[in-house]
Amino acid sequence: MKRAQAVALGEAPADLVVAGGRVFLPETGEFRALDVAVCDNEVAALPDDASDVIGEDTRVIDADGRAVLPGFIDAHTHVDTVQTLENAYHYALEGGTTTLVTETSGLGGVFGAEGVEALLAATAYLPITVKATVPPQSLADTFGPARASDSEADELVDLLDDDRIVGVGETDWIHVVGRDSPIERLHERARREGKRNCGHGAGCDGAKLSAFAGAVDNDHEAISTEGVVERVERGIHAIGRYGSVRDDIEAIAGAVDRVGAAELSLSTDGMWPRKLIDEGLMDAVVRRTIDAGVEPADAIPMATLNPARHFGLDDRGSLAPGNAADILIVDDLETVNVTTVVSDGEVVVHNNEVRVAPRSHQYPDRFYDAVDVRTDPEEFRVPADAADADGRVRGIELRDGLVSAETTVEPAVEDGALVAAPERDVAKVALLDRHPDADGTGFTGFLSGYGIERGGVATSMTMEATGVLAVGADDADLRAAAERVDDLGGGWAVVRDGDVIAELPYRVGGCAADLEVEETAKLLDAVENALGTLGVGVDRPLISLASLPFVGVPTMKLTPDGYADVIRQELVGLEL
Amino acid sequence: MKRAQAVALGEAPADLVVAGGRVFLPETGEFRALDVAVCDNEVAALPDDASDVIGEDTRVIDADGRAVLPGFIDAHTHVDTVQTLENAYHYALEGGTTTLVTETSGLGGVFGAEGVEALLAATAYLPITVKATVPPQSLADTFGPARASDSEADELVDLLDDDRIVGVGETDWIHVVGRDSPIERLHERARREGKRNCGHGAGCDGAKLSAFAGAVDNDHEAISTEGVVERVERGIHAIGRYGSVRDDIEAIAGAVDRVGAAELSLSTDGMWPRKLIDEGLMDAVVRRTIDAGVEPADAIPMATLNPARHFGLDDRGSLAPGNAADILIVDDLETVNVTTVVSDGEVVVHNNEVRVAPRSHQYPDRFYDAVDVRTDPEEFRVPADAADADGRVRGIELRDGLVSAETTVEPAVEDGALVAAPERDVAKVALLDRHPDADGTGFTGFLSGYGIERGGVATSMTMEATGVLAVGADDADLRAAAERVDDLGGGWAVVRDGDVIAELPYRVGGCAADLEVEETAKLLDAVENALGTLGVGVDRPLISLASLPFVGVPTMKLTPDGYADVIRQELVGLEL
Repeated sequence: MKRAQAVALGEAPADLVVAGGRVFLPETGEFRALDVAVCDNEVAALPDDASDVIGEDTRVIDADGRAVLPGFIDAHTHVDTVQTLENAYHYALEGGTTTLVTETSGLGGVFGAEGVEALLAATAYLPITVKATVPPQSLADTFGPARASDSEADELVDLLDDDRIVGVGETDWIHVVGRDSPIERLHERARREGKRNCGHGAGCDGAKLSAFAGAVDNDHEAISTEGVVERVERGIHAIGRYGSVRDDIEAIAGAVDRVGAAELSLSTDGMWPRKLIDEGLMDAVVRRTIDAGVEPADAIPMATLNPARHFGLDDRGSLAPGNAADILIVDDLETVNVTTVVSDGEVVVHNNEVRVAPRSHQYPDRFYDAVDVRTDPEEFRVPADAADADGRVRGIELRDGLVSAETTVEPAVEDGALVAAPERDVAKVALLDRHPDADGTGFTGFLSGYGIERGGVATSMTMEATGVLAVGADDADLRAAAERVDDLGGGWAVVRDGDVIAELPYRVGGCAADLEVEETAKLLDAVENALGTLGVGVDRPLISLASLPFVGVPTMKLTPDGYADVIRQELVGLEL
Repeated sequence: MKRAQAVALGEAPADLVVAGGRVFLPETGEFRALDVAVCDNEVAALPDDASDVIGEDTRVIDADGRAVLPGFIDAHTHVDTVQTLENAYHYALEGGTTTLVTETSGLGGVFGAEGVEALLAATAYLPITVKATVPPQSLADTFGPARASDSEADELVDLLDDDRIVGVGETDWIHVVGRDSPIERLHERARREGKRNCGHGAGCDGAKLSAFAGAVDNDHEAISTEGVVERVERGIHAIGRYGSVRDDIEAIAGAVDRVGAAELSLSTDGMWPRKLIDEGLMDAVVRRTIDAGVEPADAIPMATLNPARHFGLDDRGSLAPGNAADILIVDDLETVNVTTVVSDGEVVVHNNEVRVAPRSHQYPDRFYDAVDVRTDPEEFRVPADAADADGRVRGIELRDGLVSAETTVEPAVEDGALVAAPERDVAKVALLDRHPDADGTGFTGFLSGYGIERGGVATSMTMEATGVLAVGADDADLRAAAERVDDLGGGWAVVRDGDVIAELPYRVGGCAADLEVEETAKLLDAVENALGTLGVGVDRPLISLASLPFVGVPTMKLTPDGYADVIRQELVGLEL
């Protein structure tokens, strides 16, 4: 007989007992005075009193009347960007996050199926559970031919067979609404496998949202309660978000009274190092959600049972018998103060003491030299005749953190070329294609609203694109920053008067730093501070840049082939 | 662009519009004034007003303010016993049941994987959706070696790969709690495929239920509210039942206030012809549930979204865009008076007029001659020396419809053999093994509590077993009844004084009648009435017999090798 059964029947000693807690049952929303008996890596039973399965070798943790919860699940994150998970997972566990559902558009964007597999390999033996989605971006043909060849697309489709793959990653509505898309191949296969298609419906509503609902199963882009309700009414599982990209918790919190909590989950959508250190991961999200007025009995399922059910994670999200032994002890439900964490049966945090440490992982060699773009001055030169009679060209205007729109700008003219005009808040912006199949060239245009007054900055963190983005008030500094990012194999570089004044290498695929989290946080702070010294005036200067190529968000974005008019779904150039 | 998307975007005409209804959204529990726009066989959108997608060829059904619901789903039924679905499905549709999750222990019990495949083939082209489970019974080794050979077991396991197979069928707790079981092979594979393991936990509670919870995902055997709550608290999806076997609706209705409705579903567990004709299928179950005090906004999801979610039926259970166009118009929510039914986009019932008719299906030849048992008198002879000094032997006592227990009886003695003693309510009972691999012999014992005073009855409807069961107040009539069932290729026969006074052939595999439902109902009534003339005094004389071999229900049952002591899990004989 399976040992867990013998424990359930009271006939064999448990490996671990969490005794004397108030166990939360997400199926009923109740806290109950129960013990948790664990055998191997699963919950064997929730007896009223586990005394008779406590043997000589049974470890007993006294919960002492505190809340005992299933481990938190992040329903949507990005563990392959900014920092590697092997350097960050212990912070996740410290706050009680024991399962992550992650996008793979970083490594998967650059290396296709090999990138996804590398991520699965890197995270397979961590004491945290990682489930992943297949990146759809390389199949999109909205602004040009699909990047993936047929065989590359086949490889991505076949990943949907993998047990750790729970579906297709965030698909921008503009790629699949009102048009045929090669992405539909991925979606079809996911449906056949009973897996999920994740949506990215920023700005999608009304009839378009209905059309989108026929393609995807969830969406984390509702930024108002109305948006959440509109999604749930269309059968779209709505995922709230609190993390480094946005805080949309008020939106989802407001929806709980309208539509109940069952169709709602919570996520970070990525938590960058400083915020991870300061606030935690899903513990921060749940805390924020409770703070926004959602009862713990609703907020906890949104971070446990609901995402588990939605993504078909049948063995987690609850402490019912047969579930993975992912168990949290929480001192105070208002502050979500997680003090003890059991992950997959292993006590990884006890009384706030973290028992696990960063690990390293060896990726394939080519992942460490994954950026090779053209940085000769000619690449960034814009001939003066691109401007109209009044000296004006098309540009992108940054309006807030993530939204950008078409504008008209008047660059300066120098040696027959158009250059930045910082006095009029006109910067030069370039996106070079760093995909292994590309030639490293790109498109150079203009940007207003970023406020850069001198120097340049470049990054390989380019959402949705596989590029190197460079912005500068000065051609030479812009070029130098791009060159530095190329030399680093990816990351961030800030240049002033020819000198690199801050940098952070993203050694792994040009997507993520493989430094300890504290170090990455420090270097990212330095990059941000350096941008301040260049006069950059936006609230979140890194995200603003990283999202410039992100065609999933209206209305004008950057591609290596020109500006993308997101709404009209066409590429446009500098000429007005 | 997919046509349904064009309809959602208002750019192409719908095939069908259900206009002006109050559409129930199970995700939110609300009724909303919306239209339903259908394209091909799916819901394209739920617009406020579908006027602009009504074209020349669009069929418009005016819901006229009535409730519009997703089609009902029967979460647990048996379409391969009593009557074939091709003869009965139109009654299911008439009451709004558009999807069935069925056991296959009838045909699958007799023919293994071939039986399951035959059922899938027979139901593949009906305008009702049939999902099935793999029968675990032949892998059980609780009272003897598993019936299935290794290769037969392999074939059953491999069925779990089929898209229409949603998991493993009802597994009696006695087979898998507190012991290893070959059934675990099926369960493991189902878990790997993300499919469900269905439980049969009659009489299972406390620590045993915790152990069972580690093995199965749902259970339809709770007969008290406490039992329902106890299941949900252990992460077991609880399925309420109203049908020909039992009415447990009060139990599940009482649980809604305690644990919410989300972890609850509804089912029939089989609806025999007369009740099907008189009351309907899931419409009857929902009506009964509302009558028991459950709000329609809770009861309807229990028959739509909840079972769909539980069984991973991602494209049904809701009318959200992308779902199958299974749509009901209901006049009155209290009486669940379904007047119009769309199944998979086809209008199958309109204003109470049923547009579909019984169909026939050709099963493999050997399915029509599937009963071959030994009926010579010697088979049923019990030597007098089986009795103890006081002339007593072990017997089964029927206590109510489904429960039977060990008893001691004193048969009569005739020609050196033990025979029935009707004057003391002692009948003879025999179970012959009719499995194709068996030799057609069985075990003969004694039964009290059935009240048969003369004649004999036999049936091939033997739950869990593949047998022919015969009960008689008289050896000759018992034998004649068994012989008649053998001749019919299965079914029911009632014999009095050597004459067959009622019979019903189960031509398909000895499991189901392939007559029109009305005819089957009439013949079953006749069998029941005939049993009355033999003095049978129990309330439901057919179910009582059929369940005698059902070792999933305590406490003493019948096998072809002896009595089964269900609790002690051993076979015992006549000798005390």
